[in-house]
Amino acid sequence: MSRTIDIDAYAEGVLAGHRPTLARAITLVESRRADHAELAQQLLVRLLPHSGKAHRVGVTGVPGVGKSTFIDSLGSLLTGRGHRVAVLAVDPSSVRTGGSILGDKTRMARLSADPNAFVRPSPSAGTLGGVARATRETMVLMEAAGFDVVLVETVGVGQSEVTVAEMVDCFLFLTLARTGDQLQGIKKGVLELVDVVAVNKADGPHQQEARRAARELSRALHLLQPASPSWTPPVLTCSGLEGTGLDEVWEQVLAHRAALEETGELAELRSRQQVDWMWAQVRDRLLESLRTAPRVRELAPRLEEQVRSGAITATLAADRLLSAFTEASRDG
Amino acid sequence: MSRTIDIDAYAEGVLAGHRPTLARAITLVESRRADHAELAQQLLVRLLPHSGKAHRVGVTGVPGVGKSTFIDSLGSLLTGRGHRVAVLAVDPSSVRTGGSILGDKTRMARLSADPNAFVRPSPSAGTLGGVARATRETMVLMEAAGFDVVLVETVGVGQSEVTVAEMVDCFLFLTLARTGDQLQGIKKGVLELVDVVAVNKADGPHQQEARRAARELSRALHLLQPASPSWTPPVLTCSGLEGTGLDEVWEQVLAHRAALEETGELAELRSRQQVDWMWAQVRDRLLESLRTAPRVRELAPRLEEQVRSGAITATLAADRLLSAFTEASRDG
Repeated sequence: MSRTIDIDAYAEGVLAGHRPTLARAITLVESRRADHAELAQQLLVRLLPHSGKAHRVGVTGVPGVGKSTFIDSLGSLLTGRGHRVAVLAVDPSSVRTGGSILGDKTRMARLSADPNAFVRPSPSAGTLGGVARATRETMVLMEAAGFDVVLVETVGVGQSEVTVAEMVDCFLFLTLARTGDQLQGIKKGVLELVDVVAVNKADGPHQQEARRAARELSRALHLLQPASPSWTPPVLTCSGLEGTGLDEVWEQVLAHRAALEETGELAELRSRQQVDWMWAQVRDRLLESLRTAPRVRELAPRLEEQVRSGAITATLAADRLLSAFTEASRDG
Repeated sequence: MSRTIDIDAYAEGVLAGHRPTLARAITLVESRRADHAELAQQLLVRLLPHSGKAHRVGVTGVPGVGKSTFIDSLGSLLTGRGHRVAVLAVDPSSVRTGGSILGDKTRMARLSADPNAFVRPSPSAGTLGGVARATRETMVLMEAAGFDVVLVETVGVGQSEVTVAEMVDCFLFLTLARTGDQLQGIKKGVLELVDVVAVNKADGPHQQEARRAARELSRALHLLQPASPSWTPPVLTCSGLEGTGLDEVWEQVLAHRAALEETGELAELRSRQQVDWMWAQVRDRLLESLRTAPRVRELAPRLEEQVRSGAITATLAADRLLSAFTEASRDG
């Protein structure tokens, strides 16, 4: 991107669904250069009115659950029905390692070759907050380019699932039945985010144990208060490999959307997500500037040690850190 | 507290277990006057080396689950065995209404009259963060005064359960079996905090359905990854009213502690809680100063509206809020 960036041309190209321009626009949004960031915001403000028409669906599950195969199959099913499908990812491990869950496009062989699909790997650098921002803004570009289904993949690590749940309409959780009647241990907290659950790899000899696992999980979910009064998460079985049960999963995604639309919850959810995200960015950046302030960095390890050993109270230590930060801001 | 406060006398009185001095020291810790806050910190630094010897147990459950009766019975059982029991509370509804879940001491009639117990209502004003600070620091005073069991009560509202879970060694969740084989809907997120679960009011004709509910809940908990590799939360039944099953509940609290002590997790948990709490206070106060900055308050509603309507991006709105705050800090 050494050439001058023509925002008008970018906007027109994206709206026309021109793939090379879309790819360049995404690279602009992912860039961490300050001048790019400003241009990206100009482009996004231009495209915002043309966004918002897609089904935004998050897909999570631990490594090995078969997410890529599931998305490859589901995405192909949907393009076969005339949908245009974008696949994005939020992958915190790529943040650390520079690798990416979607870096290897051969993992979604069919979809990667599908002219009605667009598979984009997770931005491979930056904080989770930065990756989340790029992914959300890429979603705007995708929708403006006419993609009407956006699948956001994530792995069950740290905060990434909450981050994805906060940017989609429907959060789909894939899990496995294990041999010996045991469900794969479900990460705590994930059950409170899910809208649809599918026990994957329900194929061949595993069908029965998958159905048993689905029943058990369904009972467990009924013990929890539902997130929305108009929706209780259903638990299905499917096989990404054989393509079975995907129809039923998608039907439930649509039923969930219909339930939220009927009550007005969908519009409210989306605008609340935007406002929450504004505040999340404010908080993240403020706390980032706290963490990285030289005086705070110098002081923090010593104070942590003193708090650990009980030499001072946590309140007193907090006072000192805040004073150091406030003074640093004044001088800065 | 118009007299001059003699910190030496306070410290000596608390260490001697002198109840009127302890009560005054708690009032000092709860005070929001700046001069009191400074004195309170001096007192706490003095007493910290004498704290940390109690079993710190959180107790939660929705209103109507029978928490007061349960605590009254369990606390009396423990004082009967020679323990000295302090009961504190974190009640976010008292923050809003000025009322308190423990304001009415008659709710714990036996324990309130017990010379080996100390029942203290939730501080009745301030933010949840402020109430949490006062409760944690009151715990230091209680332990320095020789109480070896601290029960921290909370209600299942908002963030209060997380707040309490972060200040105790063991988090006990009380629930009910409902008629019609249904468990009371469990607030999402609470299952990931619990160390011990008890289905209360397992008395008279309700014993059988309580046991059924306990089995169902136990199955649900087994689907989740345990918080500690050395502990899976057990599910028991009890009756606070009849005093049955309390022995078994306390045994599990002790077993949980033994498991964490054996692996060194308890010491690590406690020092991590202190360091986390230091950072939580830094964050809370920094964000509080953001929220209350006049320029931010002026700007925020307009920006929220623009983000809601899609007129600007959340990222751009966050930029503007942060600039407003930073300028305000510089000028301040």
